Amino acid sequence: MRVVVALGGNALLERGEVLSAENQRRNVRIAAAALAPLAAAHELVITHGNGPQVGLLALQDAACGDDVSYPLDVLDAETEGMIGYLIEQELQNLLPPERRCATLLTQVEVDPRDPAFVSPSKPIGPVYDEAEAREIADRRGWTIARDGKAFRRVVPSPRPRRILELGVIELLLAQQVIVICAGGGGIPVVRRDDARLVGVEAVIDKDFASALLARELEADAFLMLTDVDAVYADWGTPGARAIRRISIGAAREREFEAGSMAPKVEAACEFAAHAGGIAGIGRLADAAAILAGDAGTVITRDDDPIRWWG
Amino acid sequence: MRVVVALGGNALLERGEVLSAENQRRNVRIAAAALAPLAAAHELVITHGNGPQVGLLALQDAACGDDVSYPLDVLDAETEGMIGYLIEQELQNLLPPERRCATLLTQVEVDPRDPAFVSPSKPIGPVYDEAEAREIADRRGWTIARDGKAFRRVVPSPRPRRILELGVIELLLAQQVIVICAGGGGIPVVRRDDARLVGVEAVIDKDFASALLARELEADAFLMLTDVDAVYADWGTPGARAIRRISIGAAREREFEAGSMAPKVEAACEFAAHAGGIAGIGRLADAAAILAGDAGTVITRDDDPIRWWG
Repeated sequence: MRVVVALGGNALLERGEVLSAENQRRNVRIAAAALAPLAAAHELVITHGNGPQVGLLALQDAACGDDVSYPLDVLDAETEGMIGYLIEQELQNLLPPERRCATLLTQVEVDPRDPAFVSPSKPIGPVYDEAEAREIADRRGWTIARDGKAFRRVVPSPRPRRILELGVIELLLAQQVIVICAGGGGIPVVRRDDARLVGVEAVIDKDFASALLARELEADAFLMLTDVDAVYADWGTPGARAIRRISIGAAREREFEAGSMAPKVEAACEFAAHAGGIAGIGRLADAAAILAGDAGTVITRDDDPIRWWG
Repeated sequence: MRVVVALGGNALLERGEVLSAENQRRNVRIAAAALAPLAAAHELVITHGNGPQVGLLALQDAACGDDVSYPLDVLDAETEGMIGYLIEQELQNLLPPERRCATLLTQVEVDPRDPAFVSPSKPIGPVYDEAEAREIADRRGWTIARDGKAFRRVVPSPRPRRILELGVIELLLAQQVIVICAGGGGIPVVRRDDARLVGVEAVIDKDFASALLARELEADAFLMLTDVDAVYADWGTPGARAIRRISIGAAREREFEAGSMAPKVEAACEFAAHAGGIAGIGRLADAAAILAGDAGTVITRDDDPIRWWG
């Protein structure tokens, strides 16, 4: 079986933890232990978030003045290196030596006419007070938006259209290599009118990029792993209850939390609708149980019988 | 032919230039133009330095306090992401779409008993005055050494022993994928007594790591590209002259500049002695000409006839 697993930011750093190398390594070690059984039994692709990490790099970058300020595509590439390295190393430590891993820099093409470019909405980096926000918006040409009482930079979050390294990923999977890729949703690039690829100042939603990857790889299963055990119906009310299985049609009729579950459910629906595999959402520690149908929430095509794997 | 090319730091950033993303991209574009003809004709592996970049990340890191201070293995991984991305993108822009590139995170195993660990010698990161140097040495447990009038952190530079991703690199080359890897000499890791791999605070010489890679890949040629046109005999004297060809034996009898040419010549000798291919040192723009025997310095095994490629 071919399985694509997307590790949420909260699977790599517990809420409220300081973003130190030690904390990340400890969490990555837990993630690797949860994924090792999948790696032993399946073709495995691992993607991951990078929100806190790219925020930290942007903060460090800003602390050091404008002349070495790096655009988001470059910072994304840095986080793919940093996080990918930790995942690869900790996973290798749990696998037999003959099982190979590869961490691949991944560019994801977006449409320069994506509406996200005219209405940036994804907050990123440090918070500013109003005066700082005005000054930095003027100086760097950034879009700044109110975020609660503070202000933050907002950037476009366009839909992923094409994984540029897809052919290489397929080639590695076919040779039983575990592939770590598309970190942070991939490095956003656009193809200009002269056919050149260039990076853009944007971030791609990691779950949408992973769903596209899972779909193009014709994966049998696509798991989004986080620190919540399932998708809940009526979340935040006394009647909240975990959903175990839901069809695409039923999932799209419901409303889920905009910031967290809604994009995951939509990414799951996109994958299940096009690829026919099962899409699971749940807790990192339950990865194997979700695949077996014993934990998490599974979203499948309306007309498909569910196939479970142990 | 299988060719391994090591891009020197000066091929990625001109001496004295600010380390901005724009400057790096412009230099990488020039490098890509020099390498595109090789990519069209040969199996190609590209490695690169990361000295200025890892120095900048260490500086940014230090500017943001101790609680998020990252060790060198993680910073190395970040630079493999950043520089690898730029090289891959600019090279892809010059190649036909069917020619695939892959940028691979690369760990390089070193010996924990390497003498470099007891006498760190490689300067890295920002310069300090004496008081700052004392304070930071105490606080972080760093080794600080005098560097001219200032003080800098020094770290071990152990010899590379094994490229952990070698199998994946071979697999990609066999499928005609251009591989960008071992950036900055690779991420230094040691195998502990319990067999776990862990990163270490060290930097690996990029030319030695590239020579090991070229040797293990049984490359036909290994080129170290920089901003100097050749290795010079009697450099710094009125009688200085470019060496066009030299045997390993003759090269090892001479003395070259300790900081720059000496390690390159030694890396070339190591490769030529074990792999039997040609090792070339010269200017980035002359890459194809060095392979053809028309530029740079070529070091070969004493008993081998030189085979040139156009």
